[in-house]
Amino acid sequence: MTTQREIRISTRGRGTYDLTADVQAAVRDAGIDVGMCNVFVRHTSASLMLCENADPAVMRDLETFMARIAPDGDPANTHTAEGPDDMPAHIRSIITHADLNLPVRAGRCDLGTWQGIYLWEHRRAPHRRKVTVTVTG
Amino acid sequence: MTTQREIRISTRGRGTYDLTADVQAAVRDAGIDVGMCNVFVRHTSASLMLCENADPAVMRDLETFMARIAPDGDPANTHTAEGPDDMPAHIRSIITHADLNLPVRAGRCDLGTWQGIYLWEHRRAPHRRKVTVTVTG
Amino acid sequence: MTTQREIRISTRGRGTYDLTADVQAAVRDAGIDVGMCNVFVRHTSASLMLCENADPAVMRDLETFMARIAPDGDPANTHTAEGPDDMPAHIRSIITHADLNLPVRAGRCDLGTWQGIYLWEHRRAPHRRKVTVTVTG
Repeated sequence: MTTQREIRISTRGRGTYDLTADVQAAVRDAGIDVGMCNVFVRHTSASLMLCENADPAVMRDLETFMARIAPDGDPANTHTAEGPDDMPAHIRSIITHADLNLPVRAGRCDLGTWQGIYLWEHRRAPHRRKVTVTVTG
Repeated sequence: MTTQREIRISTRGRGTYDLTADVQAAVRDAGIDVGMCNVFVRHTSASLMLCENADPAVMRDLETFMARIAPDGDPANTHTAEGPDDMPAHIRSIITHADLNLPVRAGRCDLGTWQGIYLWEHRRAPHRRKVTVTVTG
Repeated sequence: MTTQREIRISTRGRGTYDLTADVQAAVRDAGIDVGMCNVFVRHTSASLMLCENADPAVMRDLETFMARIAPDGDPANTHTAEGPDDMPAHIRSIITHADLNLPVRAGRCDLGTWQGIYLWEHRRAPHRRKVTVTVTG
């Protein structure tokens, strides 16, 4: 049995957005006990991340890391039509994840204690993002 | 129901190769409406990527990025038996993806408008690469 | 049909731990011919990797690479409650993988000749890690 749901997120620009409750609700509504949950972002300048969910400093440090290895306005970039954060957003996306695949056990994604599911908006401007959740079991 | 197909790609060396049509054909031939599609590369020096499919400059900039963080001939590398691009190819592979997991909706991978599925060859010489497509639904 | 198993690994600190035999045993015991195998790590400071399984120098070079882009004790990090390797462990995890999704063919994960499945412990101290293997087919 496969069920599918779309989650829409209006971002306020670069940063992380906690999707854990939305994804767990999709799994609960699917009514399965054991199976798999796929979370998929339909964009190339935003990505998904499983990350520590307790200390907001982790997210700030992740932004600092990304700004160092893929800085906005990097003169090495030639794909700049949409601005200085365009190509860095693609780079950040390809070294993180467009899909997460989470085991379902006892009717929920069987995450570790400290794992949260996040959308990571890599563009500076607000965007409307679509995430598809597919539950199989 | 699970169906499986192998795609073979003869690369011309480092660069990206669009697999989108081949993967969509595998899904179409599977004859399912809703489900999942797994794309898997059976190598450790080539990888998979979902990336912006409109501007070739994106691919060039991605190569520039990778050449900066994992340059060929890096004196830090000790695994050099197959040449200066051997270890960089492994590094590029582990920070991108060996598998992509794409939701199927209405009989096709439900990609975003700008998402293409690419094999990324990380070795400089031409290689024969094998990709397995598994469709479940 | 979905079967699920937990693998527990007591790490001796930072480094890679080969899970290939354990994962293949879970697939064999599931008794399916064709399907999918999901491997999932329930932590945010350890990750999974498909990597070249022949030359130990690859693992050493990967550690060198990670130490360069996400060094322990980086003054840019503010999330340091658990020590100088705390935030680097999160960074290393998010640019590698919490989940691997492997096609099953002829009753086993259809890996390439040189692909091994590894847990990558990113913390310096020994940890007890849990990995969930879910086989569907």
